[in-house]
Amino acid sequence: MPAASSPSTAESVLDAPEVPEAAFEVVERVEDLLAGVGERAPDHLVEPATEALTSGGKRLRPLLLILSARMSEPEEDALLEAATAIEVLHTATLIHDDIVDRAETRRGLPTTVASYGREIAVATGDYLFAETFTALAQIGDSRLIRAFSEASHGLAAGELEQYRSSGGVNVEVEAYLDHIRMKTAGLFKAACVAGGTLGGLSLRQIDALATYGQALGIAFQMSDDIMDLVGKPGLMGKGIGTDLVEGTVTLPIIFALREGDAATIRRALADPDPSPDVLEAAIEAVLATGAVARTEAWAMGEIDAAFEGLGLLPGGPERKVLEAVAAEVVGRSA
Amino acid sequence: MPAASSPSTAESVLDAPEVPEAAFEVVERVEDLLAGVGERAPDHLVEPATEALTSGGKRLRPLLLILSARMSEPEEDALLEAATAIEVLHTATLIHDDIVDRAETRRGLPTTVASYGREIAVATGDYLFAETFTALAQIGDSRLIRAFSEASHGLAAGELEQYRSSGGVNVEVEAYLDHIRMKTAGLFKAACVAGGTLGGLSLRQIDALATYGQALGIAFQMSDDIMDLVGKPGLMGKGIGTDLVEGTVTLPIIFALREGDAATIRRALADPDPSPDVLEAAIEAVLATGAVARTEAWAMGEIDAAFEGLGLLPGGPERKVLEAVAAEVVGRSA
Repeated sequence: MPAASSPSTAESVLDAPEVPEAAFEVVERVEDLLAGVGERAPDHLVEPATEALTSGGKRLRPLLLILSARMSEPEEDALLEAATAIEVLHTATLIHDDIVDRAETRRGLPTTVASYGREIAVATGDYLFAETFTALAQIGDSRLIRAFSEASHGLAAGELEQYRSSGGVNVEVEAYLDHIRMKTAGLFKAACVAGGTLGGLSLRQIDALATYGQALGIAFQMSDDIMDLVGKPGLMGKGIGTDLVEGTVTLPIIFALREGDAATIRRALADPDPSPDVLEAAIEAVLATGAVARTEAWAMGEIDAAFEGLGLLPGGPERKVLEAVAAEVVGRSA
Repeated sequence: MPAASSPSTAESVLDAPEVPEAAFEVVERVEDLLAGVGERAPDHLVEPATEALTSGGKRLRPLLLILSARMSEPEEDALLEAATAIEVLHTATLIHDDIVDRAETRRGLPTTVASYGREIAVATGDYLFAETFTALAQIGDSRLIRAFSEASHGLAAGELEQYRSSGGVNVEVEAYLDHIRMKTAGLFKAACVAGGTLGGLSLRQIDALATYGQALGIAFQMSDDIMDLVGKPGLMGKGIGTDLVEGTVTLPIIFALREGDAATIRRALADPDPSPDVLEAAIEAVLATGAVARTEAWAMGEIDAAFEGLGLLPGGPERKVLEAVAAEVVGRSA
């Protein structure tokens, strides 16, 4: 296994030259369709829905769906609708997550609940959930609906898990994995399965895509959790420690609590509004341990699992990009 | 058209001897399945989900679905799953409605949001939404999913409408009708359409069921709104005026505001916690007008529309019960 470099974000791969032009065109059309979903919302939800749908998500889930489908020859309209639907479902979840977490900002902007209150945030999320399944019903493929409904099952279960976890530090590795499987990995998996289904791939190939999506999602989340502590690659300075502030016990924090100066880390976790000194000391305490390296190693193990099944899939530019995305998540050259 | 008697509740028809025994057996099995949905919820949602699913709903929507399906020969397992799913969707909506309305009680019990807080209420509702579509995906009939997703679309849109309406008294008849079409009638219609679909009825017959369900739902809601003012049939005394207390401008209140002592009615509507005197005066002011009679007449017009298409449906005990339910809603002998 190669040495771990600084973890990166899977999203930067979107700028890579390997991504087929055609996939980008579809993602751009998805942008238009997302704006349309906002516009045709009930009157009082147009503004919050549009803001949430167009506030700068990187559309990684639609891209995964499109790439998976384009391994074969999907029907274009259904592909567009499904790629839009997965981002609509993702957006619905973010809105409800932010109610549950009482989050004030997301991607540097005020959350729906912060801007409009919980009444409108509940209704906007519900509208987007309904919109997701309305779109899928129009496509009319029940395997697609199964993939999406399984994912939303996990997303709903994970909402509360997140809430409960942030109450204390007794979260262990198993609970962390359960949580990110439900929240991040479930939707990545659904994107890949839905894409493979629309492309008409074989069941074995769709299984391989499911494994890929799930493992990628887990590695992606671990990478995100590391970045919150070490900062973004290419930028100076440390991470901002949002998870410590919010009391969210991520994998590197679990490892650090076991190995390092737990008292210092717990001080930041327990304080809903820790001073910069307390927060910095906690970040230092995590970085003084092998916690980040252990988390990176775990993420790379996931990526190895993700690669395993890809050999079953048709070769071509789409598969190359799936490989590149996976490698990028752990900051490794494909 | 016969003279309007005191409006009744459609739910009392469940005690009528006309309801085929077999339909009751299915409703009882739906009860068991609903309890199962609660039991297999994520750990921290088992209690709130179970409470919400088993807190004494009359299962009118499952009954409508079952009766519609039993006009022909539905596949039994799919019928049970769909009848359960429509009640699960209904329950999810009630939980989120109560967050939006900040309601403290429902059916005499504390609401989910009052008992467990908004975090758990959001997650419980989301879990039940996801559960609905997971069950439908297992049945695998995309027409069913279309009926349900259209209904949930309206339900989500209606959530906010309700919230907005309760802020003021500028709600007109059109807005009231839009609202109850989305909230009450949409789910009644979905129940009938889903049932007809599972029974394998013709498109014309399913259309007739859709018309029936929608009209029944509108009449049902109007009847409910009247009862809030005049009290339940067979009981002494007046209604309790919940809608006036909550500032919800129902059809009889709209009529009364136009015809009667608007100042007295508005006083109760505007006050979030009106004194018994203020509330009683407002109820008296509504009852002094022809508002209740006009609303009853409207509801009876809806019931006439509901009856119209029923002739297209196969005769038999199920159709008789659908007729009896409709008649009962407006307190008229079938």
